[in-house]
Formats: sequence, C-alpha cells, structure tokens
Amino acid sequence: MTLAPLRRIMIEPLVRAALLEDLGRAGDLTTDSIVPAGLVTRTAVVAREGGVVAGLDLAKLAFELIDPDIALDIVLNDGAIAAPGQVIARASGPARGILTAERTALNFLGNLSGIASATASIVAAVRGTRAKIVCTRKTTPGLRAVEKYAVRAGGGANHRFGLDDAILIKDNHVAIAGGVAPALRRARAAAGHLVKIEVEVDNLEQLKEALGEGADAVLLDNMSVETLAQAVAIVNGRAITEASGRVTPKSAPAIASTGVDLISIGWLTHSAAVLDIGLDFET
Amino acid sequence: MTLAPLRRIMIEPLVRAALLEDLGRAGDLTTDSIVPAGLVTRTAVVAREGGVVAGLDLAKLAFELIDPDIALDIVLNDGAIAAPGQVIARASGPARGILTAERTALNFLGNLSGIASATASIVAAVRGTRAKIVCTRKTTPGLRAVEKYAVRAGGGANHRFGLDDAILIKDNHVAIAGGVAPALRRARAAAGHLVKIEVEVDNLEQLKEALGEGADAVLLDNMSVETLAQAVAIVNGRAITEASGRVTPKSAPAIASTGVDLISIGWLTHSAAVLDIGLDFET
Amino acid sequence: MTLAPLRRIMIEPLVRAALLEDLGRAGDLTTDSIVPAGLVTRTAVVAREGGVVAGLDLAKLAFELIDPDIALDIVLNDGAIAAPGQVIARASGPARGILTAERTALNFLGNLSGIASATASIVAAVRGTRAKIVCTRKTTPGLRAVEKYAVRAGGGANHRFGLDDAILIKDNHVAIAGGVAPALRRARAAAGHLVKIEVEVDNLEQLKEALGEGADAVLLDNMSVETLAQAVAIVNGRAITEASGRVTPKSAPAIASTGVDLISIGWLTHSAAVLDIGLDFET
Amino acid sequence: MTLAPLRRIMIEPLVRAALLEDLGRAGDLTTDSIVPAGLVTRTAVVAREGGVVAGLDLAKLAFELIDPDIALDIVLNDGAIAAPGQVIARASGPARGILTAERTALNFLGNLSGIASATASIVAAVRGTRAKIVCTRKTTPGLRAVEKYAVRAGGGANHRFGLDDAILIKDNHVAIAGGVAPALRRARAAAGHLVKIEVEVDNLEQLKEALGEGADAVLLDNMSVETLAQAVAIVNGRAITEASGRVTPKSAPAIASTGVDLISIGWLTHSAAVLDIGLDFET
Amino acid sequence: MTLAPLRRIMIEPLVRAALLEDLGRAGDLTTDSIVPAGLVTRTAVVAREGGVVAGLDLAKLAFELIDPDIALDIVLNDGAIAAPGQVIARASGPARGILTAERTALNFLGNLSGIASATASIVAAVRGTRAKIVCTRKTTPGLRAVEKYAVRAGGGANHRFGLDDAILIKDNHVAIAGGVAPALRRARAAAGHLVKIEVEVDNLEQLKEALGEGADAVLLDNMSVETLAQAVAIVNGRAITEASGRVTPKSAPAIASTGVDLISIGWLTHSAAVLDIGLDFET
Amino acid sequence: MTLAPLRRIMIEPLVRAALLEDLGRAGDLTTDSIVPAGLVTRTAVVAREGGVVAGLDLAKLAFELIDPDIALDIVLNDGAIAAPGQVIARASGPARGILTAERTALNFLGNLSGIASATASIVAAVRGTRAKIVCTRKTTPGLRAVEKYAVRAGGGANHRFGLDDAILIKDNHVAIAGGVAPALRRARAAAGHLVKIEVEVDNLEQLKEALGEGADAVLLDNMSVETLAQAVAIVNGRAITEASGRVTPKSAPAIASTGVDLISIGWLTHSAAVLDIGLDFET
Repeated sequence: MTLAPLRRIMIEPLVRAALLEDLGRAGDLTTDSIVPAGLVTRTAVVAREGGVVAGLDLAKLAFELIDPDIALDIVLNDGAIAAPGQVIARASGPARGILTAERTALNFLGNLSGIASATASIVAAVRGTRAKIVCTRKTTPGLRAVEKYAVRAGGGANHRFGLDDAILIKDNHVAIAGGVAPALRRARAAAGHLVKIEVEVDNLEQLKEALGEGADAVLLDNMSVETLAQAVAIVNGRAITEASGRVTPKSAPAIASTGVDLISIGWLTHSAAVLDIGLDFET
Repeated sequence: MTLAPLRRIMIEPLVRAALLEDLGRAGDLTTDSIVPAGLVTRTAVVAREGGVVAGLDLAKLAFELIDPDIALDIVLNDGAIAAPGQVIARASGPARGILTAERTALNFLGNLSGIASATASIVAAVRGTRAKIVCTRKTTPGLRAVEKYAVRAGGGANHRFGLDDAILIKDNHVAIAGGVAPALRRARAAAGHLVKIEVEVDNLEQLKEALGEGADAVLLDNMSVETLAQAVAIVNGRAITEASGRVTPKSAPAIASTGVDLISIGWLTHSAAVLDIGLDFET
Repeated sequence: MTLAPLRRIMIEPLVRAALLEDLGRAGDLTTDSIVPAGLVTRTAVVAREGGVVAGLDLAKLAFELIDPDIALDIVLNDGAIAAPGQVIARASGPARGILTAERTALNFLGNLSGIASATASIVAAVRGTRAKIVCTRKTTPGLRAVEKYAVRAGGGANHRFGLDDAILIKDNHVAIAGGVAPALRRARAAAGHLVKIEVEVDNLEQLKEALGEGADAVLLDNMSVETLAQAVAIVNGRAITEASGRVTPKSAPAIASTGVDLISIGWLTHSAAVLDIGLDFET
Repeated sequence: MTLAPLRRIMIEPLVRAALLEDLGRAGDLTTDSIVPAGLVTRTAVVAREGGVVAGLDLAKLAFELIDPDIALDIVLNDGAIAAPGQVIARASGPARGILTAERTALNFLGNLSGIASATASIVAAVRGTRAKIVCTRKTTPGLRAVEKYAVRAGGGANHRFGLDDAILIKDNHVAIAGGVAPALRRARAAAGHLVKIEVEVDNLEQLKEALGEGADAVLLDNMSVETLAQAVAIVNGRAITEASGRVTPKSAPAIASTGVDLISIGWLTHSAAVLDIGLDFET
Repeated sequence: MTLAPLRRIMIEPLVRAALLEDLGRAGDLTTDSIVPAGLVTRTAVVAREGGVVAGLDLAKLAFELIDPDIALDIVLNDGAIAAPGQVIARASGPARGILTAERTALNFLGNLSGIASATASIVAAVRGTRAKIVCTRKTTPGLRAVEKYAVRAGGGANHRFGLDDAILIKDNHVAIAGGVAPALRRARAAAGHLVKIEVEVDNLEQLKEALGEGADAVLLDNMSVETLAQAVAIVNGRAITEASGRVTPKSAPAIASTGVDLISIGWLTHSAAVLDIGLDFET
Repeated sequence: MTLAPLRRIMIEPLVRAALLEDLGRAGDLTTDSIVPAGLVTRTAVVAREGGVVAGLDLAKLAFELIDPDIALDIVLNDGAIAAPGQVIARASGPARGILTAERTALNFLGNLSGIASATASIVAAVRGTRAKIVCTRKTTPGLRAVEKYAVRAGGGANHRFGLDDAILIKDNHVAIAGGVAPALRRARAAAGHLVKIEVEVDNLEQLKEALGEGADAVLLDNMSVETLAQAVAIVNGRAITEASGRVTPKSAPAIASTGVDLISIGWLTHSAAVLDIGLDFET
C-alpha cells in the first residue's frame, strides 16, 4: 500500500496559520510594491541537495490559499528521492502570489523533507535486518501529525501519536508503581481492549518481569548491543522489541543486527536538518 | 537591557495547542492508570548536555495548564548557560500532572534551547568583530515568535519577523523590476516612513546601484570573503551590511572579519538540533 | 484505580462554547432585569430521579466561568449513584450568575449522567459474566471525549476513540479487500506496532479466517446467541470477542452468558435519555 | 413557507470539528491501509426504520469536506418521511473518502432525524388541536441551532434560542422578585421593544397576576389537564398559553385538548433516540 | 434596575484579539527596550473632554491580560458622566505592562464612551417626551454586543441584536411579498411565539395595513414631523411606533414631540466620534 | 503602483465573524419567512453621498459566503471617487442571500469608505505641500489591518501597524528613561537592523537632542505652526518630521505649509463618520 496522503481538512489550519504568521497585518510589503499585479510567471521548486521529498500537499495549499490561480504541478511525489538539482514541482501563475507564499511553502517542504530524508538514511542503514525505524513524541509543538507523516514518507513507521492512543510505561511510572509487574497489572486493568501496552525495561530482570505479565511490547532502553541481543533471545517472539537511546545513523546497524523489531529515534523529528529546497524563476 | 520575556498572552495559545495535541481525546492513559491521584512528587529539569537555556516560560505554562498545583521553580533563567548535568528548574506537585505535561514542556524547552545554544556558539565564534548574528524567516511554521525569542536568548538578533515589518528586496524582485535601482525606487515610493528597505545584491555593481538609491541595508548574498571585504569598504558606513549564504560555525569567523554588520543564518532556526534536557524524579 | 477526571484544559473549550451559545449577544435578559446584582443565594443540584452522576467538573466550570465567586460544593462524585431526590452538589454565590449558568450546567450534567446511568444499568444486567459493556463511535458530534468519559463513570469501558487509535475492519472494508484474510494482511502491513486490529465477522467461516490471520479482536456482528456461543468456543481465548448489533438491556444478559469479552452498544451514547437533574433554591 | 435551510456558514464549523474529532492525528488507519486510493464506489444512505429526515446538509458537507469529489445526491429532503428501508440519499465517489466520512455524516443525520421524528410523532398526536409543539433550551451543548432546526423539520416550532432573545421569567425569578407582578414590571422596564415577555405560573392566582401585568405569554407549569383548561378559559386569548412539564406522547393529546397554544417538551432535544440510518455499498 | 455589566466570558475574546493585534509577533519593542522590568508606576485614566463613560470592564481586562499585577481602580462607573479633566480610573502596577496595554485599553474606552456620550446627548435632547433613543444593526463588525451595551450605558435602548431575535420587515421584503399585509401574514405564520414583528411603512396607507394585520411595531421611515404626528394618532397605542431616517441631535426633539415611542439612529454606533480619553503618569 | 488589495486569507476571518454575529443562532428570520427560496434578483450598491470607496472585497466576500451564487460586479474600484447617487457595484443572484448579507456588506463598506473619504478630504486639503497624511494605532479593535488599508485607499499612508514593527518613543518613555537621548540610546541598542526609531518631542530642545542621537523620525507633538516651521528648519532633512495633535481638516493646510513630512491624525480611523451607502433593488 502506498503512502496515504493527509487529508486537506487536517492540514489546512496549519497552512492558514503559517501564512497569516508571515503576512502579519500589512501583507507582503516588498512584493506588493515592486511586482505588477498582472504579472504571470513560471517557477520551479528545486532540491538544492539530494533527499526524500515530503510535504508537497502543504506547499500546494500554501500557494492556493494565497491565490487560487497558482497551480503547483507536482513532478516528484512525497516519498520520492530527489537528486541534487532536480525539479520537485513547478508553480505557475500570478507572480505576486508565488513570491508571497514562497517562504511558507518552502518552510513546510524543507522541514518535512528533512525529516523524511533523515528517516530514509537510517532506514537504508538497517536494510536487510528486521528493524523498523520509528519516531517518538519528541516532535515540534503543533506539527506532530505532519512530522509523523514525514517519517512515513521516509520509509519509517510511527510510534504512538500521543498520550491517549497506547500505553507506554516509562521508568518513572515503574518506580511509582513499585516495579514492572505491578505497573503492567494496573495498566492492563484500565486499558481498553484495543489499547496495547508497552513497558520500558532497563535490564534483563525487568524484561522477564514484563514478559511474565504479557506486555505487548518492551522498550529496551539504553542497552548495549550485547544486552540487546540477549534480550531479543529472551523475548523470543513473545513481545515486540524496541531499542531506544540516542541512536545515530552510525550506531543503528549494529543495533539492528541484534534482531530487535524496532529502533526508535527522537532525533528524526526534533533535530533533523531541513532539506535545502529553493524556488527558481524560470522566465 | 536584559532579555524581555514573551508575554503570557502571546505564548498561551501555543502551549494549549501543544498540550491538547498530546492529550488527544482520552488523555494520558498510562499515567491515569498507574499513578495514584494524590501522589505528590519533586522533580528536576536537567540539562543532559551543556548549552543555553530558552523557553522556561513555556515549560512553566505547560505544567500550570495541566495542573495549577504544579510549581516550576526556575533555577537558571532564559539566556543562562547550563553546564552538562546542571539543574535548570524544579517541578514539584501532583505526580500525575508532572508526568502528563513533561513531554510538552521538554519539547518546547529542548527546541528553543537548541536554537539558543546554536546561536550562542556562533555568537562566541565571532566575538571581537562587529558582526551580529541574526536569524531569518526560515522558521518552523507556527513558532516564529518563540524561535526568534530563542535567538535573542542565545545572544543573537532578529531579522524581520514577517513579510510586513520591513522591505527585503530579493533577487527575484530585482529581476522583475529590471534592476536594483528601479526596485528600490518602487519600494521607496510605497514604503511607510517607519519601514526600512534592504536589498539583496549579488555583486559589487548591484551594490553600488543600491547605495546610489539610498538603501538602508544591503544583503550581500553568497559572496566570497574577499568580495565581502571589498563590499564593506565600498559601503563605508552608508548602509547596514548583511552577509548571508549557508554560513556555518566554521565559516562565520572569516566572514565576520570582513567587517560586515550582520551575518544571517537560516540554520539557527530550521536545523539546530535540540538541546537534550530531561526530567528526573528526585524522590 | 478510580475514575480519572478529564483535565480542565480538555473540557474548558466545550463549556465556554456552551455558555456563549446560550448567552448570545445580549446575555441573560431575564436575570439581569429582575435579580439584584448583589443578591447572594444558596442552591442545591438535585437528582429528580435515581441514576449515576457524571459531568460535575463541567457543571462546576460552567458556574465558575460565569462568575468566579460561585462555589459548587460537590456532594456526590462522578460515578456515584444518586437516589431520587438526593442532593448531588450545592451551588452558592451571586444569584445572577447561578441563574445564568444553570441551564448550561444542567445540560452537561443531565446528558452525561444519562449516559452513565444507561451504562450502569446494562453493566448491572450482565454482572457475574465476563462481559464488559463498551460504547462506540456513535457519539454526539463534538462531545466524544466527554461522552466516553460518562460511559466510564457508569462502569463501562471504551472502544476506540476515533479513526486513528486502532484499526477496525468493517464489512465494507472486507468486501473491498476481497475477504477477511486479505483485509487483515493489508492492515497488519500498515499498522504501527502499538495499533491493535479488530475485524468484523458475520459468520463462523469469516471468524476462522480472522483467527488464522491473528486478529487481535473479532467483532461478532448481529449473531444469534447460539452462534455467539459457538464463536466463543472457536476463538477459545485466541482473540478478544466483541458482540454487537442493537443490544438492549433486555437482550444483554443472554449475550453476556455466551462468554463474550465485550458487548458494544451505540445506544449508550446516541440515544440514552438524560437523567433528570434540577436546581433548587434553598433560601 | 417551506423549511428554510441552515446556511453553510453556520454549520461548517460544526462539521469540521466533528470530522477532526474522528480523524484525530493519524486519520483513518483502517481505510487508508485497506482501500485502494483510486477506488470509486456508489452507496446508499438508507433509513433502517421509518421516521422524518433531518440533517442532510450536514451529512453532505461531511462528505464534501473529506473529499470534494464525493457527490451526495439527495433523494428525500429534510422534513420528508422515510419509510423503513427507503433510500434517503446516494453518496458516490472515492471509496476512501466515503468510508472516512461515513460515521460523522451518519451521526449528524441520525441525531437530527431522531429529533425530527420524535417531534413529528407528537405533532401527529395533537393534530386537530390548536397546540403547537415546541422545544426548549435543554439541548445538547454546541448543537442548539441544528437541534432547533431539526424540531422545525419535524413540524414543531421553536421556543427562544437562548437567554438573550426573549424574557422567560421562571419560578426562581418570581421568588426573588417577590411575586409575578413585580417580576413582570422589572422585566418590562428593561426589555427592548422587540422583546416578548413570558412568565411561568404555577397556579391560577399567579396566572391572573400575569394577565394583569400584560404578559405576552404564560408558561403553565405542571398543571393538571383540568387546571390547564381553566387557565385557558381565564386567559381567553389575552396571552399565549404554553403548557409544560414532562409531557409525553401519551399525555400530549389530553393536554392539547385543553386549548393551549403551545406544548413545550425538553425531551425532543435531550432524550429522543436517534433514527437508525445506515450506509450501504451498492456495488 | 442599574446597567447590567457584560460578563467576562463575552468580552474576553475581544480583548485578547485586540491585544494580540497590537502586540504582533515581537511585542512592544519600544517599552521592552526602554522601561526597566521592575519599574512600578501609578497612572490616571483621564477624560480629556466631557462625556459618558463606557467600557471600563474591557479596559480593565486589557491591563489584566497583559499583566495580572496591574490593578485598575475604577473611579467612575460605566454610565457616569465625566467632566473634562476628570479622572475615570487609576491604573497602577508594572510600568511596562501599563504602557503596553494602554492603547488597547484606551481604544475600547474611547470608542464605547463615544457611543455612550452621543447617545446621552440625544437622550437629553428628547427628555420630557416619551421617545426612547435606540440604536440599529449598523454597528462595527465584531463589536455589536459591546456597542449596544455602550448605547445602554448612555441611557439609550437597543433595537434587535441580529437577524434572528426579532422580525423586521423592510421595504424590500414588502415589495417582494407584494404588500405590507401579505408580508406580515407570512412572517406571522413562521414566527415563534416569543418573536415580535415590526414592519417598515413609508406612508399612512401602509401603516393602516400594518395595524390591520396586528403588527407589534411599525417603523415609520423618513416621514416628516407632520406625517409622524398623524401616524402616531392613527396608531393610537395599538402598536409601538418607531421613527427613523437620518435623525440628528437637532432634528430629534421635533420628532420626539410627535409622540413616537422610539427614535432609531444608526449614527450612534457607526459614526459617533470617540470620547477623548488619555492616560497620565502620576509619578 | 496602484493600491494592493488585501488577500482573502487575511479578511475572510473578519467577514465570517461579522456574518455569524448577525445571523446568530436562528439566521435571518425575516427573509426566510417572507422571500421565496427560488427568487433571483438584481440590486445596486449605491453611494447616497459622495466619497471614496473602500472595502469592496469585504462586501463581495460577505455575499459570497452567504451564497456562492451571488455575484457582486464591481463598478468602481477601491480608491475611486463615487459621486452622490452613483452605482458602486451590482449584486445579483438569490434574493434571500442578498438580503441576508446586505447589512454586513454595507457595514464594512460604509465604515471603510468613511475612513477613505475622510482621508481623501484631508489629502486634498494639503495638496501641493510635501505632507503625507498618516493614520495612527487609534483604530477599532480587531479592524486595524482593514482600517489602515482604507487609509491607503483614501490616498493616505500608514504609520506603524502595531507595537512590534517600529519603535515609537512617547513622552512617558522619555520621562522614564530620563530624557530623549538616553531613551534613544536604549532603543537603538535593542532594535533590530530593520527597525526604525521615532521619538516624540515636545519642544525644540528635545528635538535637537533627538537629532543628536540620530533618530530616524521625530514626532512633533502639539506644536504651534510657528514652532513646527522652526522645527522643520532645524531638522533640515536629517530626520523625517511628523506633526500630530488633534489635527482637523481645517488646521491641516497651515500645518502642512510648514514643510513637515507627515501629519498623523487619529481621527481618520477612530471618528470618521461612515459613508452612506445603500442597496437598491432594481427589479
């Protein structure tokens, strides 16, 4: 199944807010004073460096909300790899509108393509293993849905989207409950029948406790590659295994080689650099 | 004058939206099922690596909006340098609320401290020169006001905040107007008396044209250090000089040594990694 | 673990909107013209019929947002059983504010207590069986979070909260996919590791197909009690079993006796009558 | 004059909010993973039981806001009677969108048709008398405008829409003012010239007091059929008479036979069961 | 009964929006750069000219939302007459906040006091007659509720608040219906029992038609004083009489002397000049 | 360069809010009860008095948001002079929608055309001098962007749009800083490189101090014509000169004759009377 797009009703509020943030109270002083109202132009959205594209629907909407006469013809779809210098899309129509929407469109496109590209590079690094690359809740405030979408565009998968769509028992919860087992029991008693439960374990003792209570998934936090391998062997398919803890593109392959099901990386959404994408006038 | 804080009325909508994004429809399933309602605790917000702190008011508000009984006692103020392992603030109060607000508070704090820290490192790199470090409009959609605040917290300065608070004539505007001079004349004719005008110039000919028309500032785009030095000499104080074009911490000192007034860096806001900040339970 | 309250940040927008809907542009014409500004009074929120209370936090907030000087002292908590005529809470303070907020407060309280009471009556009817009573997505637009909370207050459990927190494959999905098995395979391939998958089955053949693909839960739709019992025997603990299809308080016990894990009832949220609750002046 | 539709500008915020409530942060996981993006289908919105239809504009908008390529062809208009099994409308277009919007569209349609149907049944029960059936302010928070519309669709009339479009003096106001007459005098002194004044009376003494002060309407609360008849005789056309107090379809005809102008019933909006309406795939 | 205040829940969204409109993205650059953070001051809100005060609650809220440590002590209440130079209120607290909120507070206060003062001057001009001065729907978009409140503060009364709280049949409606009588009959058939009906009449024939159909009120549009007097005689108490049509303070007394019940004046809300109110530092 | 229009994304929220404010909860009771649903009509928007038109995009949007089948054909553009009785635009389409949107459309058009006309009359009064007419921050809360646009439509220019797009040091700031010079120095130290600084001076001593510190502009407050002339001579082109202080159309020419660059007038936006514009049915 290909990447399902985010529906317009979900992204329109974000794009409107971003445009209004840039327009302020007086609009685009520069463009309105210099560019003739009737001028029509043709531009190319170009990848200045190679990477995976994400966010074209948001860019398209930015242009359209500024002026419905601007057409954004998409050349590469979200999830596609852009080579350095490659044209991703073409915006044509009233020059004023294109210039006014440009920065907002590129901000979305650059941010999300940066996340997709970072994801793709780690996905590539672990190819051949069973490990999926997943993001976390360490996202930019207000952008969680689109950042998680960008991770999918890059070939990654999503962890839970918020505090309410799954149970993830962290170390502090374990401490308060007085152990992995009592924490899991309390969670199980309260959880709806479609709510999975994952628990963070810091050592193999806790892991066994978690398995004994039937955790759906275990978060193996900050373990060495050796310990991870042992953990995977102990789990032996009885739960989903997730490795976490400042994973980098460099450390990922070794971690993946342990056989874990998932590697979660906050860095994908909180610290990936943007993909450098620009707009070139073609006339 | 010290760093002026952002007023609550400006940041409250952001913090509310971020909390609701995380709470979803069912709230914090994990915490509500495991942590007793009456449990009170004491935690420390700790810098896991060294850097400059920014965003404490947003973090404080995140805790307060979840539960007004949570107090965030601030140890280091925004703009202060945190050493690795240093306590930035202490959150105490109902454990449920602290755990529920934790991720939102840390997301703001990590993102903004990351920007402040990146800014501070470049500011330090050009110390002794006249160059100020400024950010751009390449900000995360929805977060411009707070990201620009973070740049100030890091010792940097702000470029314009949007399309409407100054005129910045870019290369495409120049091309459409048929040159730097006609572009500046059109802008001057339309600009309000408190609106400054800056123009991007790509070479020394354009620079002279800009000075001839009395530009308030010139954006020296992607010039070599040698050309920048020549440009500064030509300007000779008649306009503010701004160097731009993929400046890195490494390239900044040489650019600053040319005598430019400003170095603008999109990377500060679009690609700085978060500062790693965590929450430790102290009991 | 007791019923976790909905946080104020989640319900405040609902209560504000409801009050403004009632106040319109001119406010409470009747009260403002008749009741002296300084008059203070004492009132009781009384159950006119017996039932389970839910929604006190919303009622309290309605009074408080109209006038912070109104105190709502809660006598019975959400989830408690009110006898006919019993006092649930006492509102005291400025009479104008109490009269202005009264209808909004009672509308929330009546609606949610109605849902809680309906839930409780069916929960009671299946006591002694393993069946949990769960609600559906057939909720009043805009009120899903609070209506699902009311179900919990009545002793029921919640099905998924929306289209995005679990996968529920309905008959139309099955038809489009060409069968239960291919539908489940497609869903499994796309689902995140914390996303459970349930599938609707209309007969025992489909049920076996679902079990063969490892469905987490099966929705046994509109089956007779006999077929349900067979289904439960076939499943034999390998999946969660949910019975659905116009269940009534009358039909629930027989369904529960088949051993199903869950009985889902849209009626709880879309058609339960309000609990009759009124406000009496005590002076 | 036929039923005037609610304008799109009034219902669009409700429909958007309802869709976003269901879509959450990740959208329709089930449909996006199972249904091919290009699949087009044809479906029928079918009344599973007989009743009066209301809410088609809201349902249509739900489909359209999810995907503008979905057409909802309306077969029966709001206010029409649907026989059991009758097709109300046909939705055709992209299958994904239809499945994603289905629940929201049906929730509006079911709720509002339930109210219209309940209203129609009581309207029918009092046919031949002068009594109009009216709803109250006991509506679902946030949905007052559309629920009152549904009452009109069912052949009923509307009481006031909020606290600000008419004066309705209740028993507590009377008590505070020290009697029906002083309450009416205070209200009259403050009321705008287009604001009507109604007063609740509990007995015939109060009724006479109200008539003496020229009340526009009298709310005859919880009176027996005999007393109502006496009251109507006393009023003798000098004011509008409204009977209220837990009226049921059974008790309505006798009440109507007393000659009252209006019978108000909170149950229409707060406790009517939904009309069971489903969506059938036709291909 | 004294002037009932607008509840905070109704005015808070207006005040927040006005403050954010002024603060923009960067806040108060001037004050933040010049005024020390800790400076506390004491100021007086002073009437620079004489008039009637209105809007103090909005001004108070503007200061409070910028900084809860600012106290606005009210000296004159809404509806009171301020002499030129008189102190209306005193704002004391952090100087930064007072300066930042000043313009927003004064904009509300000046606009609303201007409306109240204009109203009061016409009310005074017709004193001794039975005529009430009423405003229209010609209000500033977004401010209707508060502008109508200001009219009340000035001693005037309110016409309907919108299209939905009364029926006002204008000349175009009459033309479409084919006369005053058919228009009234259609309106009566559709109107709720608490909805009054007023009809615009341009001559005495139409007036008689309106009375014949039992109109609650008649709008005597653009009639000469002589015709108005005849109209009042014809009506003879059977309906409320309203004179309208570019009434000025000069023409009002003669119009009032005809015995009309109401004189409506759009000018009160759409064209009254602000009352000049300033803020003086007292230290 | 001609007047640049406000983009739809900036004005749509205003127009939606204004329409909903008028529609309330029940919509246009009068029109819906009297005007047949299918009736189509043709109307003219007519200037009842002469003036400069502004706000046609808002009026057009008001009609369109009520019914997309209404076409507003614009005869005169914003900024054009309408003679008394001249047709400004023609609205044609469904009569119900035209009548329902009429008041909102005219309220925007009347308010903004009033501001444009007032501006134009003063601009005309100072023709032949170098003085530009500018507005202030004394605008109607919520309408600043459109009111400033109306000033431009009338041939005026805009002062700053808010507290954040320029620095304007007022007398109270000067007092707190201890003089014009220290205030300017603090502001300069904090100001971004594209932020201009203006300072209010009350006498020629302060003026010289301001020039000595290199102020970009000086606000010459409440000075006599003689003093203004001296001030202009002293400035001698070193700063922009702005005269302010209760300027009226009468006093403006003499002030302009002093050679000041700008005359700022709060009255344009806070007290200009509306331009009387009406809607005539043409059929």
